[in-house]
Amino acid sequence: MTLDDSLLLNIGHMLNREKGVILSGVLTHAGESYQCKSVGEICALAQTERDMAVKCSDILRQNGLPCPIVSVGSTPTANFAEDLTGVTEVRAGVFMLYDLVMAGLGVCDKSDIAISVLTSIIGHQKRKGWVITDAGWMALSRDRGTASQKVDQGSGLVCNVEGEPLNDLIVSSTNQEHGIISNRSKKDISWESFGIGSMVRILPNHACATGAMYDRYYITDGSTDIIDVWHRINGW
Amino acid sequence: MTLDDSLLLNIGHMLNREKGVILSGVLTHAGESYQCKSVGEICALAQTERDMAVKCSDILRQNGLPCPIVSVGSTPTANFAEDLTGVTEVRAGVFMLYDLVMAGLGVCDKSDIAISVLTSIIGHQKRKGWVITDAGWMALSRDRGTASQKVDQGSGLVCNVEGEPLNDLIVSSTNQEHGIISNRSKKDISWESFGIGSMVRILPNHACATGAMYDRYYITDGSTDIIDVWHRINGW
Repeated sequence: MTLDDSLLLNIGHMLNREKGVILSGVLTHAGESYQCKSVGEICALAQTERDMAVKCSDILRQNGLPCPIVSVGSTPTANFAEDLTGVTEVRAGVFMLYDLVMAGLGVCDKSDIAISVLTSIIGHQKRKGWVITDAGWMALSRDRGTASQKVDQGSGLVCNVEGEPLNDLIVSSTNQEHGIISNRSKKDISWESFGIGSMVRILPNHACATGAMYDRYYITDGSTDIIDVWHRINGW
Repeated sequence: MTLDDSLLLNIGHMLNREKGVILSGVLTHAGESYQCKSVGEICALAQTERDMAVKCSDILRQNGLPCPIVSVGSTPTANFAEDLTGVTEVRAGVFMLYDLVMAGLGVCDKSDIAISVLTSIIGHQKRKGWVITDAGWMALSRDRGTASQKVDQGSGLVCNVEGEPLNDLIVSSTNQEHGIISNRSKKDISWESFGIGSMVRILPNHACATGAMYDRYYITDGSTDIIDVWHRINGW
């Protein structure tokens, strides 16, 4: 990454002299962190992110421009940043909930994921090794963020109602209103564990995309009892 | 497709004798029509869909079981069915709105598509040939239904505010809150036509998926004036 001081200063001066605009600082999003293959790479990127943001703020200030806010953040870099000297704000993204993409990046463990979709088993196609649920992409979203990761989790990882992953069972395919669960390792499914009408939880690829399919969250606290309902602000 | 009479009759008798269940008829969805490569193939599939549904209803009735409803439907087969003798209901899917997937299948023309997302131009990256909008996948959905068709429309086809397609401009990439418009044929973009703050319409891949990102439709009638607001029933 290189830094064009004159472009930065041009933008800074332009914003600063414009009526109705307040130059509040610098902001970056280290979106490249989603392509990192190791925690080491994320750490290095977090350092670059911090260094460049702080360098920009220094240049603005040295040239008489205001820069009260130095804002960095992406969930991966927010987790692994070791040095935030000079940063005033870290925007942490899906940090609150985590998801399978973050687990795949090594940012969290699957047991840290605090969002899931509760769905009913509605059918079996035993010859194909399919368990059918009523949660299709309208329930899970079409996000396939793990498709390009080391472990492709399909459209979600299948857990029991308590939230414990069930070995190699993933949502291998979705249509609009149905999900298809199958065994990634092609092992036989223990059909008696998935009786018609019984329930499973699906951990999503991407908390933002799955959350956006709903207008509320049902909140639990260590058990399966719902203790609160949180309404979402949707739209864009 | 083969028909297992004994399985059909077993299911029919089981439903008919179950308390609290009313055997109302037969229903099919010709989902395979989405893989058809020509109108001829769709017509043939529509005939098979009709023939099998009616055959099932005949078998049920001949064995003393009720079958008042014979329901068929998928948007492609609903459009091109030539013979619906014996069918009592056609479920027509996105027939009401159409979309780029349907246009790609030859079911409709692009000018028939009655749903679009109105978005603002918020930036240019001229070296990359990118026009940036504020409509990312939160606005357009992650549906990429045209990816496997003859013409891949990216995340949507770009039109002017009046809804006329702008040559080869598509939404070539999306992130959560931004869309990237570029020219499919790599031609230069006339930047002056896409001033910051000006607006374009995006025709979606899949009307169901894009509609599901919203809680209402803004209705126009031949002009750009909004004449009504229709609220959606969301959820699953």
